[in-house]
Amino acid sequence: MSPAPLRALVFDVFGTVVDWHGSVAREVARRGLPVDGGAFARAWRAGYAPAMDEVRSGRLPWTDIDGLHRRILDRLLAERGLALGEAERAALNLAWHRLDPWPDAVPGLWRLKRRWPVATLSNGNLSLLVDLARHGGLPWDAVLSAELFGHYKPDPETYLGAARLLGVAPQELALVACHPSDLQAAARCGLRTAYVARPDEMGPGGALSQPAADGFDWRAADFIDLARQLGA
Amino acid sequence: MSPAPLRALVFDVFGTVVDWHGSVAREVARRGLPVDGGAFARAWRAGYAPAMDEVRSGRLPWTDIDGLHRRILDRLLAERGLALGEAERAALNLAWHRLDPWPDAVPGLWRLKRRWPVATLSNGNLSLLVDLARHGGLPWDAVLSAELFGHYKPDPETYLGAARLLGVAPQELALVACHPSDLQAAARCGLRTAYVARPDEMGPGGALSQPAADGFDWRAADFIDLARQLGA
Repeated sequence: MSPAPLRALVFDVFGTVVDWHGSVAREVARRGLPVDGGAFARAWRAGYAPAMDEVRSGRLPWTDIDGLHRRILDRLLAERGLALGEAERAALNLAWHRLDPWPDAVPGLWRLKRRWPVATLSNGNLSLLVDLARHGGLPWDAVLSAELFGHYKPDPETYLGAARLLGVAPQELALVACHPSDLQAAARCGLRTAYVARPDEMGPGGALSQPAADGFDWRAADFIDLARQLGA
Repeated sequence: MSPAPLRALVFDVFGTVVDWHGSVAREVARRGLPVDGGAFARAWRAGYAPAMDEVRSGRLPWTDIDGLHRRILDRLLAERGLALGEAERAALNLAWHRLDPWPDAVPGLWRLKRRWPVATLSNGNLSLLVDLARHGGLPWDAVLSAELFGHYKPDPETYLGAARLLGVAPQELALVACHPSDLQAAARCGLRTAYVARPDEMGPGGALSQPAADGFDWRAADFIDLARQLGA
């Protein structure tokens, strides 16, 4: 039995499409905060999964990523004894709306888009994803967010909801991501999986280990390589 | 008090952005159906508001526009004694995924998009809107559909839901549409309104009367004229 034809691609965004670490670190440095920008970016990001777990468990009502980022930021500033005013906090929180894409992302998406619809499937809220696309020139055919489903990845509602909205069967949809856990959750919902390596996600020489070589439908060095492997 | 700054634009699609009448009429003619293409297109479209009312009243569970279009098509074919097979009906129903944009739509959207996010706000299902965008080269920043809200326009959930997802207040959002009833419903939710004339929506010399000149924030001949008036 030949596999179902691929009919659409959805992309994880933070880390897979955009370099959150470098972008946030640069913004922190530019604002002159007396902290190491890279370490601050990593600490901010580290608060993200636990914050989503609070939503998932019901301890926190649905809160979008802007709201979660702000809660984490307030805690990080308090822990470091940094006194920032409300306007400055709000502006700094929007650093996550201005993340730069990896250099291969835009040309790779244009190439993939010639053949299939390309959409986000991110835990970022929709307005954040729209801002990222406008900032980086990301040519999405649709912007899909956890916010549309009231569930964060890796909840199955997100992967299955994306397939439903795009009008394709789960096995006709591939998730492109640099995080094995995201891909594994998508695979459990029947999606196909394309792993893209982002060794510098945590900064140059960062600590992310490469996942084991097996278990994904495709493994690519970047989006250009993925397009080539997919014949786009 | 000066008005709130405009922060995003949402667009009605059928009639406002794309020429459903001409596109469906051409497809009907191309398939050699022994009917007048324009009249068939108008009859198909005329079934649309009553079908949405069936959903709105709860007589029909949530059914997307592809499903509603198909119900109407089956009825029209039966009324005309036309025997089409399942594959041919399914393919003809997808005519609504291949509607051509009005000539000013793409250049106008590119010009407006330089300044504000531009998004659909259509009763069409999301996959239909993605297909239309890919077919016509419509450069949306986001594809918003009634499907995301479980309500069809003119229900307020659609206009307010679009503002919420785009992260703007209702008065910071403008609806661009050629249908006064859509604009009036948006205005009741606090949105600003841009009327664009599409005198040929029902075909050249069609029957749509021009609405009264007052009651909209902007009135434009087409998207290029709208961009000029908005200073984009």
